[in-house]
Amino acid sequence: MTRTAGSFGERTEAALREAAVALMARHGYEAVSMRRLAAEIGLQAAALYKYFPAKEDLLFTLMREHMEALIAAWQAADPGGADQTRRLAAFVENHIVFHVERRHATHVSNMELRSLSPARLTAILRLRSSYEKELRQILREGAARGGFAIDDPALTAMAIIQMITGVIVWFRPDEKLSVAEVAEKYHRMTMRLVGARAPAEAG
Amino acid sequence: MTRTAGSFGERTEAALREAAVALMARHGYEAVSMRRLAAEIGLQAAALYKYFPAKEDLLFTLMREHMEALIAAWQAADPGGADQTRRLAAFVENHIVFHVERRHATHVSNMELRSLSPARLTAILRLRSSYEKELRQILREGAARGGFAIDDPALTAMAIIQMITGVIVWFRPDEKLSVAEVAEKYHRMTMRLVGARAPAEAG
Repeated sequence: MTRTAGSFGERTEAALREAAVALMARHGYEAVSMRRLAAEIGLQAAALYKYFPAKEDLLFTLMREHMEALIAAWQAADPGGADQTRRLAAFVENHIVFHVERRHATHVSNMELRSLSPARLTAILRLRSSYEKELRQILREGAARGGFAIDDPALTAMAIIQMITGVIVWFRPDEKLSVAEVAEKYHRMTMRLVGARAPAEAG
Repeated sequence: MTRTAGSFGERTEAALREAAVALMARHGYEAVSMRRLAAEIGLQAAALYKYFPAKEDLLFTLMREHMEALIAAWQAADPGGADQTRRLAAFVENHIVFHVERRHATHVSNMELRSLSPARLTAILRLRSSYEKELRQILREGAARGGFAIDDPALTAMAIIQMITGVIVWFRPDEKLSVAEVAEKYHRMTMRLVGARAPAEAG
């Protein structure tokens, strides 16, 4: 966790992150005590409190880092340019791969907005909004240039994000489909949804 | 709640249902005690335990009734017949209206599968599956008759359900759009997603 790195050591940090999102995804943030979390990774509660004085500090750090990593992953994956069909395909693929690899953290990020204090909720919603804005811009530009047939880019962006995040609800690594195949199928559905005439669309 | 009706009185029953889903949606099932729930509706914990000996009995009842009500609402809304485009439109509208009216119960139903014991989880998943099967059949028949252009009805059904359930994440009754307008917009997106050539699709 960026701001406390060095204090914990990398392995403890990774163990803490993994244990925290797993316990919170399983039981809900409110039901997971700092004591239980510390025990899970073999720490004294006092040691954990030293770096996260309140449980919400830990939650906020996890949620902020989740969104920052998502935004960074998209910045790396974004092909840029004027071809919005190509950018949309990259957006869908990046979003699905990112979330399938982080199921617990995604559940926590989606469910536990309820557990943040107002200022921190605002900070997380701002990060979300800047990410969703990328998709809205792709849809808006694609519609303006005639590539997409959509009447409400903002609502379409919400619909696409809900649809592609929903993969984590049913997809398991042992499914018959690989992540790449799932991403490809969702890509085709997204292209139809936005009325793009892609070659892959023949279906 | 069906099996205990008459014992509680209708008003207490409605208050219990509302308080239970609101508290669980806000704090998570595990963090809400029977004592707190009883206090919320002005009952002694002992009175609540008389009708729901374990907290999980209450959760299971809420989740079962939620799914049974959804299935009943769809049975009432299903126009039947061979026109799968028309049936799909009715499915999307019914699903959105039902869930927008029951945001808390929907959050609990989606999040707290994790909190059910195996036998009860199986019972709820069976109800879900029978509901989702309706959508899969619509898609399969629509594809077989050439009305829809989809290559994977099961995966498309999951995608549609995630997309249209997602309305509850952002839609609030004070939004600029009415529920009917939202349902209409999602209907059009769904029609594009399944490759149906509906008149409304011009977008």
